[in-house]
Amino acid sequence: MSLQPIDPDFEKRVRESFSRQGFMDFIGAEITEIGPGYCEIQVPYKRELSQQHGFFHAGIIGTLADNSGGYAAFTLMPTDASILTVEYKLNLIAPGDGELLIGRGQVIKAGSTLTICRPEVFVVKNGTQTLCATALMTLIALSGKPDKPK
Amino acid sequence: MSLQPIDPDFEKRVRESFSRQGFMDFIGAEITEIGPGYCEIQVPYKRELSQQHGFFHAGIIGTLADNSGGYAAFTLMPTDASILTVEYKLNLIAPGDGELLIGRGQVIKAGSTLTICRPEVFVVKNGTQTLCATALMTLIALSGKPDKPK
Amino acid sequence: MSLQPIDPDFEKRVRESFSRQGFMDFIGAEITEIGPGYCEIQVPYKRELSQQHGFFHAGIIGTLADNSGGYAAFTLMPTDASILTVEYKLNLIAPGDGELLIGRGQVIKAGSTLTICRPEVFVVKNGTQTLCATALMTLIALSGKPDKPK
Amino acid sequence: MSLQPIDPDFEKRVRESFSRQGFMDFIGAEITEIGPGYCEIQVPYKRELSQQHGFFHAGIIGTLADNSGGYAAFTLMPTDASILTVEYKLNLIAPGDGELLIGRGQVIKAGSTLTICRPEVFVVKNGTQTLCATALMTLIALSGKPDKPK
Repeated sequence: MSLQPIDPDFEKRVRESFSRQGFMDFIGAEITEIGPGYCEIQVPYKRELSQQHGFFHAGIIGTLADNSGGYAAFTLMPTDASILTVEYKLNLIAPGDGELLIGRGQVIKAGSTLTICRPEVFVVKNGTQTLCATALMTLIALSGKPDKPK
Repeated sequence: MSLQPIDPDFEKRVRESFSRQGFMDFIGAEITEIGPGYCEIQVPYKRELSQQHGFFHAGIIGTLADNSGGYAAFTLMPTDASILTVEYKLNLIAPGDGELLIGRGQVIKAGSTLTICRPEVFVVKNGTQTLCATALMTLIALSGKPDKPK
Repeated sequence: MSLQPIDPDFEKRVRESFSRQGFMDFIGAEITEIGPGYCEIQVPYKRELSQQHGFFHAGIIGTLADNSGGYAAFTLMPTDASILTVEYKLNLIAPGDGELLIGRGQVIKAGSTLTICRPEVFVVKNGTQTLCATALMTLIALSGKPDKPK
Repeated sequence: MSLQPIDPDFEKRVRESFSRQGFMDFIGAEITEIGPGYCEIQVPYKRELSQQHGFFHAGIIGTLADNSGGYAAFTLMPTDASILTVEYKLNLIAPGDGELLIGRGQVIKAGSTLTICRPEVFVVKNGTQTLCATALMTLIALSGKPDKPK
């Protein structure tokens, strides 16, 4: 499938929106790659992100799945549109045991209203990546509602 | 459906596990109610939990759904078992626009291996509660693996 | 939540659409109740609907979840709109062991574009109903595209 | 991921189980390919499988997703185990408009208890395949309960 961005400056638009998410700064997340229909977000481990056994909390894993999928979809939006997550389903496949979490959002179907993504989350331990979670999500474009500061 | 806890001290067990989740302390989450097959978790708003429009980030909404559902299931576990989220599906229904977020996890089917929960997340604005997200989740009990500090 | 149908003749509209679904006739399904934001569909057991142990096939269970949810949403549509299932998630809770399967679709959030339903499927054995499956689904209204024969 | 079947006769075991599903015969479904962690099922179009616009009914699309995923998982089971669908989530991506429907189930994570599959359903029209639906599903192995006729 060809995923052609309408807005050539999609990367700037994605990074600007991401920078306004206080939660991303709070958890230490950064965008590490952006392409048409694709977005990668990384979060290094810190104790504040842990569940009861000291691993990455499932809430952080879900956050990376949702956000990498959302910004993957946002790369394909026109400049006057914002995007909302309608729903997602996430399978947790391995514990979030490692020093780094990587969310990779990939658009698998881009429509004018609805976009379908397949985000995956990997955990890196001693340099080895393990698939930690896989998701399937639906997003909706809101035309005429640019994703801008109020 | 009767949801009979095997462990009469389930509340203590849930609170002790919750207190070991660094992420809950980090976001300011507290358990506000526990019952057999039920758990409620609240998070007051702060700027650090926001998405790009200043509302609660979907990652926090998903975290409350997952965690309230997980601890709802954990209330029904025997003392020598821990519980893992297998998967969940979350529909975001209204923006997380408010001063408080409430996750309510409810077990709808308790099995010896698998438990099904239906978590809901509400946002409170000026005292009025709005359904913000609804979920459907599957958990698995790990027998002989108590949820204890290592 | 108030679920106010725009079209007072919603029941007729639902039944007419249902009657054009060849698959419903083929499996022996009938609508047994319709209300605003609600639809119930029943299928009596026959050997042709079975899986390998002789119970109702999961495909039939999923079909009833999807179709009862879809028509529940359709009751609330204007006359010039059709409705499409965007996605659904289904938990199979008990085997489809019985003489009758009942799908009950209930709208939990009706929007102008998206509608969220929570279908449940019950199996009846010797007159006793058991919850067989529960689902969470998203539908989208297609305005200006009436659900009519071509 | 290596998907190593424990039972070298997995194909025979899958076909034998499939042949006992009355519903597969009723809708005209056939297994067209089996491999370790993989199963493909096809259904030619007939009027009896249609929804209100004459396309393949979503219930048939869901059935193929569920069944191809289920038998993909079953290829990896030991001979004394059966397998149950715990849950699945399905996104309908394109209308089922065509002469043939193909379900392709692929295991993406095989565990001793839980297996995760990613089934896809394609519709073929005038020889061209279109992705019609994509799913994410969880299955559970029941050890000591062979999938045999009673």
